[in-house]
Amino acid sequence: MKLYADSSSGNCYKVQLLLSFLGLPYDLVEVNVLSGDTRKPGFLAKNPNGRIPLLELDDGSLLPESNAILFYLAEGTPFLPEDRLGRARALQWMFFEQYSHEPYIAVLRFWRKYQGRTRESEPGWAEREEKGYAALDVMERALMERPWFVAESPSIADIALYAYTHVAAHGDFDLSCYGAINGWLDRLAALPGYIAIAPPPGRA
Amino acid sequence: MKLYADSSSGNCYKVQLLLSFLGLPYDLVEVNVLSGDTRKPGFLAKNPNGRIPLLELDDGSLLPESNAILFYLAEGTPFLPEDRLGRARALQWMFFEQYSHEPYIAVLRFWRKYQGRTRESEPGWAEREEKGYAALDVMERALMERPWFVAESPSIADIALYAYTHVAAHGDFDLSCYGAINGWLDRLAALPGYIAIAPPPGRA
Ligand SMILES: N[C@@H](CCC(=O)N[C@@H](CS)C(=O)NCC(=O)O)C(=O)O
Ligand SMILES: N[C@@H](CCC(=O)N[C@@H](CS)C(=O)NCC(=O)O)C(=O)O
Repeated sequence: MKLYADSSSGNCYKVQLLLSFLGLPYDLVEVNVLSGDTRKPGFLAKNPNGRIPLLELDDGSLLPESNAILFYLAEGTPFLPEDRLGRARALQWMFFEQYSHEPYIAVLRFWRKYQGRTRESEPGWAEREEKGYAALDVMERALMERPWFVAESPSIADIALYAYTHVAAHGDFDLSCYGAINGWLDRLAALPGYIAIAPPPGRA
Repeated sequence: MKLYADSSSGNCYKVQLLLSFLGLPYDLVEVNVLSGDTRKPGFLAKNPNGRIPLLELDDGSLLPESNAILFYLAEGTPFLPEDRLGRARALQWMFFEQYSHEPYIAVLRFWRKYQGRTRESEPGWAEREEKGYAALDVMERALMERPWFVAESPSIADIALYAYTHVAAHGDFDLSCYGAINGWLDRLAALPGYIAIAPPPGRA
């Protein structure tokens, strides 16, 4: 198995974190988003949508989309619920992540840490910040009722949401009032096989 | 089964279309987004993320997120591939839909047909239009190689992508050059059980 990824990207880290929890070996091919690697012909031939992460299976099959990769890798493991409603709930939170969370929380981190943009320089900052906090509110409410998003044990929904939530401060989000989220972040980081995300380039 | 939906919304129509293909009976509860129904306390108690569609099962379980609902309903039917990679590919295209397609193609339709905004009135129009066409290009390329997105027969990936693609003209997208997409739209509309989407309010 080969993973095309940038280890400081949350979408890529999700996959690396699950692979580590599962103890699965793989080859990492580092792809540099900032230098345009994802839009070069060689990469576009592998993923016409021009994005990482991208998983290459041993038979050459290519699978993009971080959350589809998580689902593929988790089938038959404790990270994907065995019952039909549980699987749908894991997907519910993963679609929530891509639609209501990542476009705000990951994007402000990218603006800040990769592109050096700030609240002052960006008219679109406030709206994204508001929507990011709305997503955190929905998560907080869910985690006040149970320890993990779907079941009594961690699933790929937790991994998908952990990726950008635990580095939300990189986009100037303040998590200090989110008690349930902070407890959940700590529980996830204490799981055996946990690995840290690579630091972003870190522009001011 | 009860579906909270607005029949002119593509995210809701997806679910209604699959239910119709499968011949499953359900009660429709019309929810009006424009009058703020999705943000009223009664609805937020059912979906704290304040969005439709929302599926309520006979045991009272509540499932939001259109594509998670599609997956739930399709399990055990021909609309979800039986093999592991096929399931992951269906999800790949559904995450593509929510991340790279809906935020551009559905949003311009909403601006135009529900809110009466235009290219002239909106500085963000051109960027969304460009990203919408990029998504259509990725779809066209995939459909030049095969009749449906995942397998030799239609799956929930086709239904998810059909919803907003077939009404892309509502957001001023011109599909006339997309031969493979047009053939696929026709094939899907010819399937037994097909139903049409309800017209949007239709502001100028
Ligand atoms: N929906 C995709 C999003 C992936 C994505 O946006 N990846 C970024 C890095 S975090 C990327 O490849 N950007 C480069 C580009 O768009 O050219 C997923 O979940 O995998
Ligand atoms: N990711 C969600 C998106 C659903 C969505 O945005 N629904 C719109 C109608 S198409 C809505 O409920 N908007 C009302 C609101 O945000 O208050 C899904 O696929 O179900």
